[in-house]
This record gives sequence, structure tokens and C-alpha cells, in this order.
Amino acid sequence: MKTPINFTEKFSKFSEHWSPKIIAQMNDYHFKLVKFQGEFVWHDHKDTDEVFIVLDGEMTIHFRNDDVSVKKGEMIVIPKGEKHKTSAKNECCAMLVETAGTVNTGNAGGDKTVPADAWI
Amino acid sequence: MKTPINFTEKFSKFSEHWSPKIIAQMNDYHFKLVKFQGEFVWHDHKDTDEVFIVLDGEMTIHFRNDDVSVKKGEMIVIPKGEKHKTSAKNECCAMLVETAGTVNTGNAGGDKTVPADAWI
Repeated sequence: MKTPINFTEKFSKFSEHWSPKIIAQMNDYHFKLVKFQGEFVWHDHKDTDEVFIVLDGEMTIHFRNDDVSVKKGEMIVIPKGEKHKTSAKNECCAMLVETAGTVNTGNAGGDKTVPADAWI
Repeated sequence: MKTPINFTEKFSKFSEHWSPKIIAQMNDYHFKLVKFQGEFVWHDHKDTDEVFIVLDGEMTIHFRNDDVSVKKGEMIVIPKGEKHKTSAKNECCAMLVETAGTVNTGNAGGDKTVPADAWI
């Protein structure tokens, strides 16, 4: 804490997709950086809203009845319990904000599930 | 919710300094945009950490024993209860994340205090 966290420097530390890395904690919330391309799995987070802030590129959030495009310089709040799936045609770099311990795939499981405690 | 929030569009809606505007809520947290230039007042937030994400320009966070510069593309976490003062030589545009209801001047009061419920 009390040290500035530089997004470009942090993004240079990993290259894998769909694997959020924690860069900061505020109270019981984590700020995580993630890179992704292609399509994620349908899931929800029963206990927390989730924020995506797009830092580079563009992503789509697929909801059951709607697709929402979010690009660099934009953010979106995904309501708690709302089924969604993320996708990106080209690599997208984003920051997630959610409660500490939130698993990337919610309860959906599968091979895209990663540990929720990876710091960089 | 479920609508992308564009920072440039939101920043175009106000010009006053030191007057955070709420753009999103995630659980019981607010995401606020703020513009400022010059020097704020010493204060702390007894009950919450506070995040600054610099979206344009550069700011300094003055702590009792340290000055930390935070520029575009960087964020910082100010620990709960830590006395601090923000300043910026030129206009800085930033996003704050903190618990809903957090007052900008903490308990310090004074003429820079603004309501904590202004949405744009």
C-alpha cells in the first residue's frame, strides 16, 4: 500500500488468458488485471456484483437477453446473480473489481477455472 | 446497470474541482469521477480504504511522512485511517472507489466538503 500500481508494468508480468491476477486490495475487495481473447463460459456470481474496467481493446458481455460491448475507457457493473459470459475478438486487457475470493467461473467450474488468490 | 459507462462522456458533464460524482455502484461501493487542481485538505477516512485510479494527468498524495506521485495508468490504495492530502499542479482526472456515503473530506469539514450522493 501507499505505492502507485502501474497497469502497464503489471500487464507485462503475465501473458495467459482468462487468469485474473490481483494487483491491489481495498477493504475486502480485490482489483485484478486480466487478459483474454475468445469466449469464456456462462456463469454468475451469487454473492457479489462485479466490475469490468476496459484498459485496452474491447470486450463483449453476453447476458441472457442482451450483448453489451465495452471498450477502452469504459466500465460496466455486472449485477450479482446475473448469468453472463465474456468474449473478445482480439486480445482485451481489463481490470476486475470484486470481493476477495471470487472465483472467475462462479459455480460453473470447468477447465477455465483458476485460483482466486494469484497476486502479481 | 448492464450499460457501459464511458469516462470521457461522464467527465464532459461537469467541470468543478474537488467534487466527486458517482457513476456506478457495485454492492455498497461507489465509483466516482473527480477533477481537481491545486491542493486539498488533510483528512482521513476512519472506516474505509480508498482507491484512486488516475485517468488523465498526474496527482500527488501527501502522507504524513511521504509524497507519492500517481499518474495516468496508475492506481493507489489509501489505507483506512491514514491522514492524507491530494494535490495536482495541473488539472487531474481520476476515479475514486470507496464505500457509499464516504465524504470527500472525512471528518475534517471545511468549504471543500461536498455531498456524497451526487450522481451523474
